[in-house]
Amino acid sequence: MSESYYGGIEGGATHSTIVILKQDGSVAALVEGPGTNPWLLGIDQCLINIAVLVKDAKKQANIDDDTKLKSLGMSLSGGEQKEIQIKIISGMQSKYPNTSDNYHVCTDTYGAIETASSSGGLVLIAGTGSNCQLINPDGKVSGCGGWGHMLGDEGSAFQVSMLGVKTVIDAEDNLRDPPYDISYVKKLMQEFYNISNRFAILSHVYSDFEKPKFSEFCKVLAEGARKEKDPLCCWIFNETGKNLGNHIRAVSSKMDKTLLNQPSGLQVTCVGSVWKSWDLLKDGFLEGIKPRPEGDVEIKKLKLIQLNKSPAFGAASLGARKAGLTLTLDYEANYEVFFST
Amino acid sequence: MSESYYGGIEGGATHSTIVILKQDGSVAALVEGPGTNPWLLGIDQCLINIAVLVKDAKKQANIDDDTKLKSLGMSLSGGEQKEIQIKIISGMQSKYPNTSDNYHVCTDTYGAIETASSSGGLVLIAGTGSNCQLINPDGKVSGCGGWGHMLGDEGSAFQVSMLGVKTVIDAEDNLRDPPYDISYVKKLMQEFYNISNRFAILSHVYSDFEKPKFSEFCKVLAEGARKEKDPLCCWIFNETGKNLGNHIRAVSSKMDKTLLNQPSGLQVTCVGSVWKSWDLLKDGFLEGIKPRPEGDVEIKKLKLIQLNKSPAFGAASLGARKAGLTLTLDYEANYEVFFST
Repeated sequence: MSESYYGGIEGGATHSTIVILKQDGSVAALVEGPGTNPWLLGIDQCLINIAVLVKDAKKQANIDDDTKLKSLGMSLSGGEQKEIQIKIISGMQSKYPNTSDNYHVCTDTYGAIETASSSGGLVLIAGTGSNCQLINPDGKVSGCGGWGHMLGDEGSAFQVSMLGVKTVIDAEDNLRDPPYDISYVKKLMQEFYNISNRFAILSHVYSDFEKPKFSEFCKVLAEGARKEKDPLCCWIFNETGKNLGNHIRAVSSKMDKTLLNQPSGLQVTCVGSVWKSWDLLKDGFLEGIKPRPEGDVEIKKLKLIQLNKSPAFGAASLGARKAGLTLTLDYEANYEVFFST
Repeated sequence: MSESYYGGIEGGATHSTIVILKQDGSVAALVEGPGTNPWLLGIDQCLINIAVLVKDAKKQANIDDDTKLKSLGMSLSGGEQKEIQIKIISGMQSKYPNTSDNYHVCTDTYGAIETASSSGGLVLIAGTGSNCQLINPDGKVSGCGGWGHMLGDEGSAFQVSMLGVKTVIDAEDNLRDPPYDISYVKKLMQEFYNISNRFAILSHVYSDFEKPKFSEFCKVLAEGARKEKDPLCCWIFNETGKNLGNHIRAVSSKMDKTLLNQPSGLQVTCVGSVWKSWDLLKDGFLEGIKPRPEGDVEIKKLKLIQLNKSPAFGAASLGARKAGLTLTLDYEANYEVFFST
């Protein structure tokens, strides 16, 4: 009997990862490729990029181009809505019929959760933007955030950067009193954005606005907190930690008891570069998850994990499961615990 | 001796107003025309539009095209920086030499202040965006705000709208508790933005974002506060009033005593459509101007005014004065008091 292959794609705005696994979970191919966000690329280019990813991965795995995968799970940024999922699947079936027997499309948070657990869980993204998603063991989904920088992104690198800039501006305008002296953050801001006068920040948020570029100021502020112990830098990360904790608190009442009462505590899959500053976020975060007087559920035990495998593994697992197939993944080998209570 | 003429332009992003006054302040022409913001249009188109405005106004005043104005004051949105002022003046002199003997360019807040007073003052703009500017009798300028919707706009129609939308989103996400029940504002939001599900708001702030259009939700929220007395609508305007008051507080320590101690109180020229909701803003505003424990100056007596003439009058006055010419304006006839303490 010939080997069966199971594909999984983690799709981002600018790049994607594909894995092809054998039934025992061993890796036949792992390839990086272009972005696959259907909203940013348009559906046609998205399909082309998916097809290229699969072709390249098959090549790496020495699988013939005409040999179909058993399943292809796609955990895509921009893959949230039913409509777009249907378009992607029917597009693959008609335009690239030799790709896979079965398809599954979901949003990018799903692959991350599934990489660490087969029975749902919680993911908290704090990268350039932020988002929190809960998948209960019964498949029911709840979320908090994911609104982007105009309406949300609390706890993200964008918001860290904005908090720094805005605190300086408001203090200099005398509109709001800053919680701490702004001198150091002001100096960092002038250097990072290369601005000589206060109005020069405007181009960075309007005419030349690029969210990832603007948000990299977060790194500089983290350095300022860690190395210089600047009180305002530290305060910014404390607020950010609170905001991140608030996302967990927001969905606490919707969590299935089996997730909450795991022996090692509620497992949260933490994705994104802001988590690199966990030392600076921690106190605020633990304050932020505390229940409000009404409605929230107390999180008695907590385990924060970081994936050491691509969420493409979870996507592959989801793709197989949704097709009723068996694919063995060693979930516990896919992550590391970086904090537990 | 032939009559002398003094021009003034109030320049906005989408439209401008020009007046030509005689030396006694009587109106020889008043014409509306296209926008004159040099940043939005580019300098060449800005100059063309200024020339067209002057030509049309001269025609209305029965002034020969070759007869130069004594002075032309231009109070332009986007006219804040020295560089651009020099470009506009030298451009007019070289390309349209018969326009005027003297030129003056300043930002749009200046014309508004000068329309109501020859000795400086305070203007607080609360339209789609917000901005506050103080000009002391000695010509020294201070400001607060004017940073646009990404970095500021506190007290503007944009921020009123955003506060409504964001309060609903955060409450539904369970991220933050709203100060009052969101049901009514949620209904208004769904109707105004014509959205059937909560994610449909995204296009209004990203792909199809138009700041003026987004900000018109402010009107709907004002209705909700005034007619329905909805507590959340009322709270939003109270917060907005506080924010506007905070702008005055921010520059209070920089105000010359002659402005602060006028017999009828500190005169604030209020510009923009948000002031139509003064009844809803008032309590918050009066709270917002109260001095903080340190640094602010108490505003003991206050007079809020609205112009009943175009700020183009102030621009004409400034243009004449900066050229050392005498132009008589009846400042007190140019405004109405809508609130005083």
